[in-house]
Amino acid sequence: MNTMGRHVIAELKDCNLEKLIDMQYMERVFVDAALEAGAEVREVVFHKFAPYGISGVVIISESHLTIHSFPEHKYASIDIYTCGDLDPHVAANYIMGSLEAKSTQSLELSRGIGPIKINQ
Amino acid sequence: MNTMGRHVIAELKDCNLEKLIDMQYMERVFVDAALEAGAEVREVVFHKFAPYGISGVVIISESHLTIHSFPEHKYASIDIYTCGDLDPHVAANYIMGSLEAKSTQSLELSRGIGPIKINQ
Repeated sequence: MNTMGRHVIAELKDCNLEKLIDMQYMERVFVDAALEAGAEVREVVFHKFAPYGISGVVIISESHLTIHSFPEHKYASIDIYTCGDLDPHVAANYIMGSLEAKSTQSLELSRGIGPIKINQ
Repeated sequence: MNTMGRHVIAELKDCNLEKLIDMQYMERVFVDAALEAGAEVREVVFHKFAPYGISGVVIISESHLTIHSFPEHKYASIDIYTCGDLDPHVAANYIMGSLEAKSTQSLELSRGIGPIKINQ
């Protein structure tokens, strides 16, 4: 398998608070985001922290999607890492829209056996 | 909780093949790496692909550790993302040593509500 991958790192600000604290919703959004990008979902694990905050991971055949949410700041930090021909931005944009982020910042890294490249 | 985090991205080349294909070993290394860095382990999920390759995630209270291994290339791609006072390099170095990577490339990103900063 080709080791080359695309890794989108994104910070989502001013998200919809109701959505950030709803773990079932978040899980569905992440699975749907993976599917939208054409990925094959292998494992889904989400964890709720007390008093608030959710961390979650979707392992896909093509790498992974992760989130760490900080509802008290209406902020979430996401990673979308895909190998093969998938476009990680499809999943990233789906998540940004679903969490209604009003402001985002992101960059894309090229992963793989070659040098790590940064595309801002 | 403070949103600021440190995210180490690393490519591990020329790893020990026997270790790269041993999922039980890999799980133990990742949990131990998290503990070495002072993290609190919350979820551990590893997935084995046919014919080879392992993807795994450890969700910690302070964010996550992930790996995607490509034994056919003796290569693994890892992410160590920590919030709080933890040093993600402690976990990264532990993993690099445990997989006996002969060559590595890494960079550190500053995550959080502020701008994403890259430290190479």
